[in-house]
Amino acid sequence: MAAKFASEKNLKFMLYEVHDLVSLTKQEYFSMHNKKTFDMILSAGMKMAKDLYYPIFKEMDEVHPELENGTVKVHPNVRKIMREAGEGGWISACFPTKFDGGQLPTMINCATHFLFGSANYSGSVYPGLTSGAAMLITSFGSQKLIDTFVPNMLEGLWQGTMALTEPQAGSSLSDLTTTAVDKGDGTYSIKGQKVFISAGDHDGVDNVVHLMLAKIEGAPLGVKGISLFVVPKYRPLADGTLEYNDVAVSQVFHKMGYRGAPITELAIGDKGDCVGWLVGQPHHGLKYMFQMMNGARLDVGNAATGIASAAYQASLDYARQRPQGRKLGQKDLTKPQIPIIEHADVKRMLLFQKAVAEGSLSLILQCHKYEDLETASTDPEEKEKYNLLCEILTPIAKTFPSEMGIQSTSYAIQCLGGYGYCQDFPVEQYYRDIRIHPIHEGTTGIQGMDLLGRKVIMQNGKAFQLFKDEMEKTLVMAEAAPEFQEYAKALRAAIADIEEVTAHKMQVAATKGPEAFLADSVLYLEMFGYATIAWQWLLQALMAQNGLDGGKAKTMKDLYEGKVITCKYFFKYEVPKMQGLKIRLMEDDYLTAEAPVSCFND
Amino acid sequence: MAAKFASEKNLKFMLYEVHDLVSLTKQEYFSMHNKKTFDMILSAGMKMAKDLYYPIFKEMDEVHPELENGTVKVHPNVRKIMREAGEGGWISACFPTKFDGGQLPTMINCATHFLFGSANYSGSVYPGLTSGAAMLITSFGSQKLIDTFVPNMLEGLWQGTMALTEPQAGSSLSDLTTTAVDKGDGTYSIKGQKVFISAGDHDGVDNVVHLMLAKIEGAPLGVKGISLFVVPKYRPLADGTLEYNDVAVSQVFHKMGYRGAPITELAIGDKGDCVGWLVGQPHHGLKYMFQMMNGARLDVGNAATGIASAAYQASLDYARQRPQGRKLGQKDLTKPQIPIIEHADVKRMLLFQKAVAEGSLSLILQCHKYEDLETASTDPEEKEKYNLLCEILTPIAKTFPSEMGIQSTSYAIQCLGGYGYCQDFPVEQYYRDIRIHPIHEGTTGIQGMDLLGRKVIMQNGKAFQLFKDEMEKTLVMAEAAPEFQEYAKALRAAIADIEEVTAHKMQVAATKGPEAFLADSVLYLEMFGYATIAWQWLLQALMAQNGLDGGKAKTMKDLYEGKVITCKYFFKYEVPKMQGLKIRLMEDDYLTAEAPVSCFND
Repeated sequence: MAAKFASEKNLKFMLYEVHDLVSLTKQEYFSMHNKKTFDMILSAGMKMAKDLYYPIFKEMDEVHPELENGTVKVHPNVRKIMREAGEGGWISACFPTKFDGGQLPTMINCATHFLFGSANYSGSVYPGLTSGAAMLITSFGSQKLIDTFVPNMLEGLWQGTMALTEPQAGSSLSDLTTTAVDKGDGTYSIKGQKVFISAGDHDGVDNVVHLMLAKIEGAPLGVKGISLFVVPKYRPLADGTLEYNDVAVSQVFHKMGYRGAPITELAIGDKGDCVGWLVGQPHHGLKYMFQMMNGARLDVGNAATGIASAAYQASLDYARQRPQGRKLGQKDLTKPQIPIIEHADVKRMLLFQKAVAEGSLSLILQCHKYEDLETASTDPEEKEKYNLLCEILTPIAKTFPSEMGIQSTSYAIQCLGGYGYCQDFPVEQYYRDIRIHPIHEGTTGIQGMDLLGRKVIMQNGKAFQLFKDEMEKTLVMAEAAPEFQEYAKALRAAIADIEEVTAHKMQVAATKGPEAFLADSVLYLEMFGYATIAWQWLLQALMAQNGLDGGKAKTMKDLYEGKVITCKYFFKYEVPKMQGLKIRLMEDDYLTAEAPVSCFND
Repeated sequence: MAAKFASEKNLKFMLYEVHDLVSLTKQEYFSMHNKKTFDMILSAGMKMAKDLYYPIFKEMDEVHPELENGTVKVHPNVRKIMREAGEGGWISACFPTKFDGGQLPTMINCATHFLFGSANYSGSVYPGLTSGAAMLITSFGSQKLIDTFVPNMLEGLWQGTMALTEPQAGSSLSDLTTTAVDKGDGTYSIKGQKVFISAGDHDGVDNVVHLMLAKIEGAPLGVKGISLFVVPKYRPLADGTLEYNDVAVSQVFHKMGYRGAPITELAIGDKGDCVGWLVGQPHHGLKYMFQMMNGARLDVGNAATGIASAAYQASLDYARQRPQGRKLGQKDLTKPQIPIIEHADVKRMLLFQKAVAEGSLSLILQCHKYEDLETASTDPEEKEKYNLLCEILTPIAKTFPSEMGIQSTSYAIQCLGGYGYCQDFPVEQYYRDIRIHPIHEGTTGIQGMDLLGRKVIMQNGKAFQLFKDEMEKTLVMAEAAPEFQEYAKALRAAIADIEEVTAHKMQVAATKGPEAFLADSVLYLEMFGYATIAWQWLLQALMAQNGLDGGKAKTMKDLYEGKVITCKYFFKYEVPKMQGLKIRLMEDDYLTAEAPVSCFND
């Protein structure tokens, strides 16, 4: 089990050379940190990924969580994971010091989570969700709520969850029906049903704290009537003991992958004895939840990146060792076979995987840097700028790794041939595990509508303009370097294409209405994704070229050269795909919106 | 278990209206058949798919075949499948009457296999392989070999296999090391190891007959030294009893999908007591095997098509029933939610699946029609023409359904959201099952090299020219119909693009050598695939329009309209993707061929 699932060297190159993590320490908010502490955290994270997460990667896939006597039984090491994540300060890493947190940049947290997700995605979900749920309470909950629930969550003793989805309301949150009735004592009586709740119950913790959406009696219809509640499985009494709170698991779903974490269906208040605590103001629940949701979407992108990275490493390792065939044109069959990594088509599949995994990682870190700058900044205008950059990039950072990760892990299988399809190698598990990511925390369809229908047009296109300003900085650098001018030109053309398509779609919105406007928004998102990742690859290549030109440590030479080659690969093989998308997006028919449902009758 | 996995109505439209199956009966060779017998076969096939294959589709996935006391234990119904396939004449359907076969067109056999593969791919493999292996013996084996082995195979009592792959020789058949030593009595002593042998051993039959590649002592190096042998698990003695032939199963692979059929590793002649019978001439084995291999490649394409079709039907069924959300712009939340099939993005995902499944089916039937015309024709020139058409289309008919089927089944999951990822619905199994197809019977990489490196250039481009001539017939029809002229124009442009790219690649071959020539052959194959399927969609739409214009039965109206809409979808959404591929293919760098292996060091 000593296989390599991620490159620490690449991660450091990304953090320090591409995205200049250390520059954040100039900000007052992060000023207690320095490169040394970051290095220590990375080393500790890598050790934890190797020693705690990776050894049970396969076991957690093999033994499905099952419901036993009202509790979901999970791998015994989940308790260990939660305790180490709590005691080691991983769950509270990004919380302000006033909550006993590490007040670390989310960039470094994202980097360690990338390692955990590469090592064992299912295992990494438990503390990750807990952190997000606790953050929601500290951000919007009363001091009493914080005192009651947060410490045990940050310690890893209690699990946190996001409880949004209901059987009749997945993507359509307006249709939630879980109800909350004011009990008059500052608490609410909750009743309803939730499905697909990740880590919604398990025996690796002593309690589960659901951050749950519900509607208070008489609330307005739709999303404007949604409130947020803390609904624990066991309610803490005044004396510190726990009492069952009528939150029962009615089902554990059996899934294709991501099998180490239970996805549960919950029956809430079936016996009329479920108490919930309101977080913040009534009817503002969705707004609060979206703080967690945006973080969760970046987490999904990061996890997909981690899985794609692990699959890439596994197929790379195989391709280096597996002899098969000879160079084309080599007719001398007495010569030994060569490792398949020397075949052009295998290199193409590896370059694709590298391009997806490292391009995605770069974008996710970029988003977290904006998030950290938003947090650290004291200037409202700066704060808004970084917030908008995060907003516009989140649907891409969620979707590109998730969707391209499917193809990337599929290529990992393909590199191994028949062996890749067998359980003796890990790539088939990566292929199954990653498939959840285009679904949860907002499907790709939802992300497409979010990007084109909200983010690109918000504040008269301000977020889009800020995004272009950011790319401009990279373009100026690239245009000053002769070997990258070609790619700068291609990226400028890509941006112009997106602008042209966007203008066309705005016209459609004005003249044909929302159905026609958004019908192809998934294609728009895909097109936008290529340009965004191209930008990140150009940035990486420029920083790598800096390293090469500066004659830095010889040990970095291959990595730097690999970055420059992969950047070229991305511009030569992937960016051209925008043209097919553009042709479709510029058309003036609304085939999918207009096709009658009867056309599927056969 | 009454779910719909395939549309019989669509299949009949394809067979009778698009590809005019009945016209084959004008050929002497097929003259004993008529539409009525074809209809009966289709009905019987559908019944068998529903009653025999589909009910155990899920069970065969859940219980993995395991090695027990030297035999692989499979689902108990496998024996039933083999017996019914034998007794019902399904295994021998396309064999000439002189072998007691049905002498049916492969088109109708392909249609019933499509149904079996849609219902339960793993189950359909056992008789399918047996048929192919027996065909190889009847085509090239001696009368004695035929008499000894074929009757029991056609009866479904003995399993047939293709035994090519060895641990050190998958795609590289030159490196086979299984040996054959002449025993002087007309038989050979066989020794070696084979891996990934589908249905290589199981308890659903009384014997297993391997069609095995091996090298006779002193044979030339490489593929020119490969011979073909019949190597049974039990050798039939003169008195009709069976004696163990030293073919042992050393391993059963556990796979991600396609779990109902055992893939085995075989130890042949470990005790020095394995007898093999030479088929045909020494050293001609690969040529013989390729008769079976080409058929097997079409079978893979057909099976992938079947799985994609079943996944499409499952997601269509769900999309019709699942309410979620409202039309965009519908603000009245008191209105009920609408079925998701009414959302444009869901229709887009369904149209994609329909386009892939039905476009692929059309191409596979087209290939089988050429095969049947080759068989039936008595004119050597005609025979060669149809053979060449089959040759050039086989890599596409194998790869397009296999590769696009991955995305298609992925969309099936996406249509179901979280439920699609769970084992309560069949789509996750389809997604796992289909993933084998770009791997076995020649990977996608091999198919790409086959198309660009052999098929397109064979006989000075004769096959390519014949292919264009065939498309021309469709184009002429389309140009005479005002509503299809736009698509005819697009298809002409697509063909011109392929010609341009092909010319460029020929130039590269001449000036830069084979590595550069074939480096992007997978992309070339993908591009070629879009044009080929576009042709098939145009053909289908034209025939559907004929039906609409002719005012045929009202029950066909929706299907016809669906064909026209899906054709438009394919031209509007898929054909433009050729542009991105073309841009790459026309470039003059050889990035993947030239990238040093060190660029992956990190």
